[in-house]
Amino acid sequence: MSDDLAIGIDIGGTKVAGGVVDGAGQILARTRRDTPHRTTAPRVVEDLIVECVTELLAAPEARGAVVAVGIGAAGFVSADRASVVFAPHLSWRSEPLRDSLQQRIPVPITVENDANAAAWAEATFGAARGETHAVMITLGTGIGGALVIDRRIQRGRYGIAGEFGHMQIVPDGIRCECGNRGCWEQYASGNALVREAQHLIDAGSPVVAEILHRLGGDRSGLTGPFITESARHGDPMARELLADIGYWLGLGMANLAAAFDPGLFVVGGGVSAADEMLLGPAREAFRRQLTGRGYRPEARIVRAKLGPEAGLIGAATLARSEA
Amino acid sequence: MSDDLAIGIDIGGTKVAGGVVDGAGQILARTRRDTPHRTTAPRVVEDLIVECVTELLAAPEARGAVVAVGIGAAGFVSADRASVVFAPHLSWRSEPLRDSLQQRIPVPITVENDANAAAWAEATFGAARGETHAVMITLGTGIGGALVIDRRIQRGRYGIAGEFGHMQIVPDGIRCECGNRGCWEQYASGNALVREAQHLIDAGSPVVAEILHRLGGDRSGLTGPFITESARHGDPMARELLADIGYWLGLGMANLAAAFDPGLFVVGGGVSAADEMLLGPAREAFRRQLTGRGYRPEARIVRAKLGPEAGLIGAATLARSEA
Repeated sequence: MSDDLAIGIDIGGTKVAGGVVDGAGQILARTRRDTPHRTTAPRVVEDLIVECVTELLAAPEARGAVVAVGIGAAGFVSADRASVVFAPHLSWRSEPLRDSLQQRIPVPITVENDANAAAWAEATFGAARGETHAVMITLGTGIGGALVIDRRIQRGRYGIAGEFGHMQIVPDGIRCECGNRGCWEQYASGNALVREAQHLIDAGSPVVAEILHRLGGDRSGLTGPFITESARHGDPMARELLADIGYWLGLGMANLAAAFDPGLFVVGGGVSAADEMLLGPAREAFRRQLTGRGYRPEARIVRAKLGPEAGLIGAATLARSEA
Repeated sequence: MSDDLAIGIDIGGTKVAGGVVDGAGQILARTRRDTPHRTTAPRVVEDLIVECVTELLAAPEARGAVVAVGIGAAGFVSADRASVVFAPHLSWRSEPLRDSLQQRIPVPITVENDANAAAWAEATFGAARGETHAVMITLGTGIGGALVIDRRIQRGRYGIAGEFGHMQIVPDGIRCECGNRGCWEQYASGNALVREAQHLIDAGSPVVAEILHRLGGDRSGLTGPFITESARHGDPMARELLADIGYWLGLGMANLAAAFDPGLFVVGGGVSAADEMLLGPAREAFRRQLTGRGYRPEARIVRAKLGPEAGLIGAATLARSEA
């Protein structure tokens, strides 16, 4: 393993996280910004990325050994990984991000979908290490997905594979930001968790009394992490809500298993902090829904290992491997 | 291209079709049997395969140049392609088909899932030629599926990828032979076509008067090909039924496009004979359901080119390429 380093920048819906990453996937230096509002001009977002990269290049831990920069972005990235075709949380539309940044950054740049980057980190250093066929599910506000076949990230014909969250699982179901109805991420995600809790509160149901008490009247505190925390404290309703999300998670994974037949599912993202309160019901639904069950080996379902920094580690590691 | 030949045997739900195939995908000699009933002992089915292969090896067109035998089977085939793990239409359960046959046939044998074999034929000689990322959908009594990525058939970790027909698209939907409910093939297949027509007849609906008239009172004649034929003669109800199947076909393909982002869908199998009466509505539903539509290149949807012999051509061609 060489001493070469790489910088990874992960542009998520709320945070931009950057780091200097070594060949073992360790983060030697970090930086962090808020993601600009979705109406912010592309040039301003670029300025922010350049600022982060410049700061990290100058960090003592970088010691002049950075050979590549990888940008992980929540959006559709073109097959040549030069452009962000569409990003729901940013103003990028067919934005030639790589070339624009390359004019301002003196190290080779690659652009990658954020879920692909996180999957690559898990495949290289984390929960999917050693597995030839893995599916990565990132449960945050929505669902990010990535497909590893023969130890390679599969990007599809145009670079947009892995958008599992927008597979329809309920005809005429709940409206999704993508414009469709019934998308998987409307049933298995942090947003779904919060929406269902809000519905219960709106309905004046007594089952949310404990959650309301813990909230102390401040409805803005009703977030995915808050519900997970409530479940961990034993709140039965919060546990039921997580189990419901887990059910839909398992059902969608059974669909993906019918299509891909992976050896492993890795579940990451913020909601995966609920751990067995989520994954237990997910495994149960998966086993109940898997076609051909009893006549086939079954994929394992495990929690991701690298936490919220998987995206930046993966973006850096992919960029490094291509430098 | 060498003069080597291969034998392909396609074991479907109703027919066993065999042929001697050359390097250009041409069938030089053919044989055909009825598929034994699903309760028939594995040994008897093997006898039938051996009989077909022996007949074809002795055919003058084989001219002693057959270097491989490929068996395409409607069922789960293990990743090492030695065993049929499970076959819904036959009594095979973890049947070591390759080794059993190899003891009786003097030419190297490979076993492959029938939809994979058909996809390989279309990728090599047919509608998917030249496409790096293709999804093959075989609409027969059910749905057979196969996935071509980087010009290779993707079999998954355990050999069972491509079972698209058993992805759930309707929660608590119609019961499927696989044991689940709401599987895609219950909504988009020849069986779905016949079931819906039967429901209309049972309901005494006047809209099926023309179909009933053409049937001449013989309900056993109500098959997928009969309905397609009625539609071709202008029967409005038959056309509506095909359009309904087409809608679900397009919706399922939009789901697969979200996951794989292929450049091309190839629709084959018996129901594809309905051509634009099926594919027109399918394309319309696909375009309406594709996530990110308007911001991404869209996969093309075309009819398979090689017809019902794609399975045997593909089984032979895969076997030949490995010999």
